[in-house]
Amino acid sequence: MDLQTAVKAFRDLQLKLHAYNHAMGVMHLDATTVAPAGTGEGRGISLGILSEAAYAIETSDEAKELVKYLLAHKDELSAQQAREVEMFARSSEYTASIPADEFTAYQVHLNKAGEVWKNAKNTNDFASFAPYLEKIVETNIKFAKYYKPEGDVMDTLLDQYERGFDQKQADAFFAALREKIVPLIAKIKEKTQIDDSFLHCDFPIDKQKEFSDYLMEVLCIDRNHCTIGETEHPYTTNFNKNDVRITTHYYKNDLTNSMYSVIHESGHATYELNCGDEYQYTCLSGGVSMGIHESQSRFFENIIGRSEAFCELIFPKVCELFPEQMQGKTAHDFYLAVNKSEPSLIRIQADELTYALHIMVRYEIEKALIKGEIKVSDLPRVWAEKMKEYLGVDVPDDARGCLQDSHWGSGSIGYFPTYALGSAYGAQFLACMEKDLDVYGLVREGNLQPIVDWLTEKIYRHACMYDPKPLFESVVGAEFDPHYFTDYLEKKYSAIYGL
Amino acid sequence: MDLQTAVKAFRDLQLKLHAYNHAMGVMHLDATTVAPAGTGEGRGISLGILSEAAYAIETSDEAKELVKYLLAHKDELSAQQAREVEMFARSSEYTASIPADEFTAYQVHLNKAGEVWKNAKNTNDFASFAPYLEKIVETNIKFAKYYKPEGDVMDTLLDQYERGFDQKQADAFFAALREKIVPLIAKIKEKTQIDDSFLHCDFPIDKQKEFSDYLMEVLCIDRNHCTIGETEHPYTTNFNKNDVRITTHYYKNDLTNSMYSVIHESGHATYELNCGDEYQYTCLSGGVSMGIHESQSRFFENIIGRSEAFCELIFPKVCELFPEQMQGKTAHDFYLAVNKSEPSLIRIQADELTYALHIMVRYEIEKALIKGEIKVSDLPRVWAEKMKEYLGVDVPDDARGCLQDSHWGSGSIGYFPTYALGSAYGAQFLACMEKDLDVYGLVREGNLQPIVDWLTEKIYRHACMYDPKPLFESVVGAEFDPHYFTDYLEKKYSAIYGL
Repeated sequence: MDLQTAVKAFRDLQLKLHAYNHAMGVMHLDATTVAPAGTGEGRGISLGILSEAAYAIETSDEAKELVKYLLAHKDELSAQQAREVEMFARSSEYTASIPADEFTAYQVHLNKAGEVWKNAKNTNDFASFAPYLEKIVETNIKFAKYYKPEGDVMDTLLDQYERGFDQKQADAFFAALREKIVPLIAKIKEKTQIDDSFLHCDFPIDKQKEFSDYLMEVLCIDRNHCTIGETEHPYTTNFNKNDVRITTHYYKNDLTNSMYSVIHESGHATYELNCGDEYQYTCLSGGVSMGIHESQSRFFENIIGRSEAFCELIFPKVCELFPEQMQGKTAHDFYLAVNKSEPSLIRIQADELTYALHIMVRYEIEKALIKGEIKVSDLPRVWAEKMKEYLGVDVPDDARGCLQDSHWGSGSIGYFPTYALGSAYGAQFLACMEKDLDVYGLVREGNLQPIVDWLTEKIYRHACMYDPKPLFESVVGAEFDPHYFTDYLEKKYSAIYGL
Repeated sequence: MDLQTAVKAFRDLQLKLHAYNHAMGVMHLDATTVAPAGTGEGRGISLGILSEAAYAIETSDEAKELVKYLLAHKDELSAQQAREVEMFARSSEYTASIPADEFTAYQVHLNKAGEVWKNAKNTNDFASFAPYLEKIVETNIKFAKYYKPEGDVMDTLLDQYERGFDQKQADAFFAALREKIVPLIAKIKEKTQIDDSFLHCDFPIDKQKEFSDYLMEVLCIDRNHCTIGETEHPYTTNFNKNDVRITTHYYKNDLTNSMYSVIHESGHATYELNCGDEYQYTCLSGGVSMGIHESQSRFFENIIGRSEAFCELIFPKVCELFPEQMQGKTAHDFYLAVNKSEPSLIRIQADELTYALHIMVRYEIEKALIKGEIKVSDLPRVWAEKMKEYLGVDVPDDARGCLQDSHWGSGSIGYFPTYALGSAYGAQFLACMEKDLDVYGLVREGNLQPIVDWLTEKIYRHACMYDPKPLFESVVGAEFDPHYFTDYLEKKYSAIYGL
């Protein structure tokens, strides 16, 4: 084997793996958007076979030999080639640590579990979902131990979504948030509450769909490479940088639920759409970590989307689409209403301030589940207790409690903290961006392209070329500091509530 | 290798191949329904890799050895097992006759060609599509010659869609139709024309969607295993017998276009949904041939869907959904309007009588293209000439001419005759069914289940267990005779037009 041949073969291998992931991704998208309800079994069988094939490709002797050969010739590789080898090896080491049959069986299980979760949520039937979640928790623990037998399981899981992030950092991070957020919430409680009832009247779905298209346009989404669909739980998926899909969920009596889902998912989509062409079809394609990804989705959702400038920008369109509902209201009323801070039940509807507490509830439950301190069957009770403790709300049922999110049912344990982390990353990015751009001036003008360009230059174009920590630090020129986020929140909510 | 091991390995092989076809099918469905426009290239790359893998599975040494071993032990196999081996061998012999790289390159080409066709149709730009179609024609010829070097290419192509059907039969069949249909059309021309203008006013799409759901319910479609989507050109696809998808295309100013697409595709779907469970995930799953398939879609579309009994059944629903549009109209007016016979431009909108002439135009063009008598660049001219000759209509543009159908762009040459053949099969099935059931009495009652059950018993449940010819003859107890169809047409149109 010579170097050129090896490099070519390695690229082909990555492309092949990409094709399987592409196919499985489309099948998953289909399953959650338009597939008939009774089709899970057949899909599970096919996904099992395809994921088995993908597993075989990633852990094949050919792959191992190529990695070994290329690592031995690392000095002759370009920086990108070397990174491809490093990242491929990192992923295949994890995959190979899991026995093939267990790997495949778990993919089939997840396919089924997603379907069961959806039904369980719709019928408020936690018991039907519990055995599926039990197996997911068990499997997460088992796989983490296969991969890092000596490691702490929860640390291993956190690292999978945000490389280098562990419980020590997470605990410190959440403590820093709690210290600032809890008193802020208490102060707001004493103030006159904002009236947001005009956002909860009748909003015809077809008009909401028009509104989604408008928002995606404002957010500079290239619709030639990104569509929007409808799912139980909104998400973004990408098959390559030119094929990105976002989803939302429309509610007839709620304008902002879908609106902020669309903005959030558009943030994810923007990241994917603007990755560097040179990484396309390699294992370096796409966003580098969930923390960085959520920094973008939550940046657009909150720092941009819930700013007064953005509300002023879009309010004329809101009035055009929903003239009766907005009668007598101003852009400032709209701004106040979308920033109403109030402890509530549903994470994706939570305001920026109380949001982190929703994440803390989930993070602590995940830790307890993984450490075996609680069982899956305890979840409804523990969820209710923690929601009462942190947010002071009573959980009326599991649909609005521990069944509300799709993450656990799709196998993701250790993902939730990245939402809060992303929010905090975003605030530090903003501070940095404001040195170069009049951010809110641009938003007010409806000219978001320079903001996207700035993020593309600093973050998006690099795809997975750098790990999240060095990438983050290269952008802000410093270490991560959660006080940018708490300062941002204090300033914003003090102004809104006159604290 | 022992027999049990071989049978098991052979089943696994079929299942594996099924999984790849499932994935590629979902990707195709996604491409034609919701994918953003600019995503063809990435999809083509992945489809190329997956079809290469499927090719490798179907033509692998393992597959060859299994087939050889099982053929040598044919006497020890069940009838179904023996048929699986026979059908698998038949398909893999064809696949293996094509060099792997050409096979894959063609799949990639078809993916692109489908996209180009759609744009060409929408912009009436035949020139942009012509080079893609040229390659498709060339490749069809080349592949047919690889497979049957001594065979007549057009016969080889016809045989792929309807085993045992060749030009000799097709020519005789179309001659029989022409002999009866052309004088009928001439007689109708002398009569007072039917007013169907009330079917071409404004029909809101959301109401048409409700109507589709209603029609699928009437047609006994199990919505738990069948959804409806929207595409440029309606079609049915199935990933297994429990996962069937139909599509339609809604036109704001035309009720019956989508209505009869939905009924037509529901006929295809009913066939797939009612195949025997024992064939699931084997190469015997699904409908046996395009002729038999079209016999079902056209049976429901026309023999059922354009009957007076059906119009009486559904008319109250039509009035409920479209009260203004139906004001002053009766079920009989509706029946007459949906059976208005008039030479027209668009095949899928054509009435039952002139429909076969649309097929003849296509069949003759296909023959001429394959034999090299005309070139792809001649298509617009030849199309217009033949439409004038057979139907007496002037073709105003290619969008309503040779670009109207998706078939050629998706690689299907020799498929069109099965529509006419299916229509004729259907009339002979009806004659037979009427001996057992009061077909139109049941339709009038809205009780179509006994009709579906009859067809399931005689046709659907057998999936690909028998070739189309013996299957057909087992149902009707005789040979195929096109006069059942021409008699049916004569009777129906004589009554409608008082001939």
